[in-house]
Amino acid sequence: MTAMSDEASFIARMRAIATHSAARGLMDDAAILPRPEGAVVLTHDMLVEGVHFLPDDPAESVAWKLLAVNLSDLAAKGAKPLGVLVGYGLGNMEGLGSDSAWDMGFAAGLGNALAHFDVPLLGGDTVQMPANAPRTLGLTAIGAAPATGSPERNGAQAGDMLFVTGTIGDAGAGLALLTGQEGADLPPAAKEALIAAYRLPQPQMALGQAIAPTVTAMADISDGLLIDAQRIAQASGCTIRLNLDVMPLSSAYIALRGNSSSSRIAAATAGDDYQLLFTAPAEKAETIASLINEQGGTVRAIGQCATATPQSPQLVVEYKGTPVTLPARLGFEHGTAATPK
Amino acid sequence: MTAMSDEASFIARMRAIATHSAARGLMDDAAILPRPEGAVVLTHDMLVEGVHFLPDDPAESVAWKLLAVNLSDLAAKGAKPLGVLVGYGLGNMEGLGSDSAWDMGFAAGLGNALAHFDVPLLGGDTVQMPANAPRTLGLTAIGAAPATGSPERNGAQAGDMLFVTGTIGDAGAGLALLTGQEGADLPPAAKEALIAAYRLPQPQMALGQAIAPTVTAMADISDGLLIDAQRIAQASGCTIRLNLDVMPLSSAYIALRGNSSSSRIAAATAGDDYQLLFTAPAEKAETIASLINEQGGTVRAIGQCATATPQSPQLVVEYKGTPVTLPARLGFEHGTAATPK
Repeated sequence: MTAMSDEASFIARMRAIATHSAARGLMDDAAILPRPEGAVVLTHDMLVEGVHFLPDDPAESVAWKLLAVNLSDLAAKGAKPLGVLVGYGLGNMEGLGSDSAWDMGFAAGLGNALAHFDVPLLGGDTVQMPANAPRTLGLTAIGAAPATGSPERNGAQAGDMLFVTGTIGDAGAGLALLTGQEGADLPPAAKEALIAAYRLPQPQMALGQAIAPTVTAMADISDGLLIDAQRIAQASGCTIRLNLDVMPLSSAYIALRGNSSSSRIAAATAGDDYQLLFTAPAEKAETIASLINEQGGTVRAIGQCATATPQSPQLVVEYKGTPVTLPARLGFEHGTAATPK
Repeated sequence: MTAMSDEASFIARMRAIATHSAARGLMDDAAILPRPEGAVVLTHDMLVEGVHFLPDDPAESVAWKLLAVNLSDLAAKGAKPLGVLVGYGLGNMEGLGSDSAWDMGFAAGLGNALAHFDVPLLGGDTVQMPANAPRTLGLTAIGAAPATGSPERNGAQAGDMLFVTGTIGDAGAGLALLTGQEGADLPPAAKEALIAAYRLPQPQMALGQAIAPTVTAMADISDGLLIDAQRIAQASGCTIRLNLDVMPLSSAYIALRGNSSSSRIAAATAGDDYQLLFTAPAEKAETIASLINEQGGTVRAIGQCATATPQSPQLVVEYKGTPVTLPARLGFEHGTAATPK
């Protein structure tokens, strides 16, 4: 008996992960899911080496991130994940052949991440890449929309409050640490926290499902708090007034960059946060706080929606009561990201 | 007003294609499909430049093929397409920046192909690729399973007949023509027909939906007739006896390679055919012929299923009544394909 090829080993490992009956052990060309309970939410995000992740990011964490960024899109729709399909380009280093250690690390990381979030692997495709091609990974996530319907970006009403979960800017700071731009003298625990935020983002699945019936608009923060807030304002036809000084920062972030207006602008435009940004009527604030608290999460009101006039900008950012001049770049436009999705 | 970037132009073009309400104009991070009528069929296939398509294949035809190979997986499940998500890596040539002509050609070809098959674009992701990275494209297709259930690979029964639609080997011959291996003196019409089979495969959507309730097992021929037949035999626990001499060949194929046992073996192992291979009880042969005829397709019985014994091989191939020694390679294993999916 000959040893299995690296590719056969990789596929065998993926088959071992794909235990859900709909996956048919990845032996078929298609997965078949029983009829969902309601509407189906679909999202597909790619990660490309050197664009969305660093060549020396561990394979396990790249697998986690590939799953997490897609689950975050489902979270913003209040959807319960039904499964994922993975498109995987096998590594192929010039002169060295396939990079089986990385591939197997990816498979192990994917298995762990799927188990952590209790999401089945349903299918996908594994392909050989030409020599020296950057790793190119795609994942499609399928979710069941909440019975009350999925929140959209366009539902914010004048008078609604703007809320955000968790803390902002940590992943962007983690990337800056990894690329050696700053933080040489940061305490190790703070470094670790910021790098973990970059490599192992936590999609807010439980929070999204809990609050979906109560919010008027919701998005996940993938490209940057300011640009994602602007998109909600634009889609909803209102003006969003955002109080930069109450935007939540972690202690690790403050240890790295301080707590100034400029450190807050950096956090609000960094992207890769995968927190939830949403609007709801002011009278729902207590309900929302208690729903999020029940799930062990944190939430803060950081702004409000106002009636748009022909003259009013979509986004007004204030710091301690004074309008801040907005940076030219509010976040990452789709596809132009140097790193974030 | 500044001119749009190539990427913005590409995304604008994709948005113009995404007219289905579930796509939300590609302005959101996720698509939301109303609750499907039945089970949901999901498939994801990738195409990589230099692996699954040639660098000088026209962008329009690569878009067609990306859609067609995924729709073919739905066809084998008798599924009606509900929509697709596309993962697109924008071209990026060293020193030249983005290859917008190719990208826009792809968008135009995708629009045409989606319109041709009446399938909505629901979402996806567009990413920048590092300089000189091979184009890497992924597509997820979602379909509605037939009310009678989707055929699987494992339902063939001893006594069933084995059928195939269309003609076999044309795409593989087309690839050989494009890579200059043969065919210098072939008449232009035959050349065109074979190259079209390679670049513009026709997924058998209507046939698959029509016959799904009648077949016992079904697959599309992506990797090669022999290997796909062997997989049906293996999954079903039977032996398949295949009559190579009745396997349908096109006149263009015969003009190129003649009609010998070896030319037939080449066709049966080439892959990329995207025809349907299926089994059904002999008494259903008339029904099947008439269902396929109604859809304007062709079908031929090319073998039969027999009870497997511990000694019997999964696949026996005969040519004019005499067993043929099987080649070492029956087709393309997943992911190891030099070209076919």
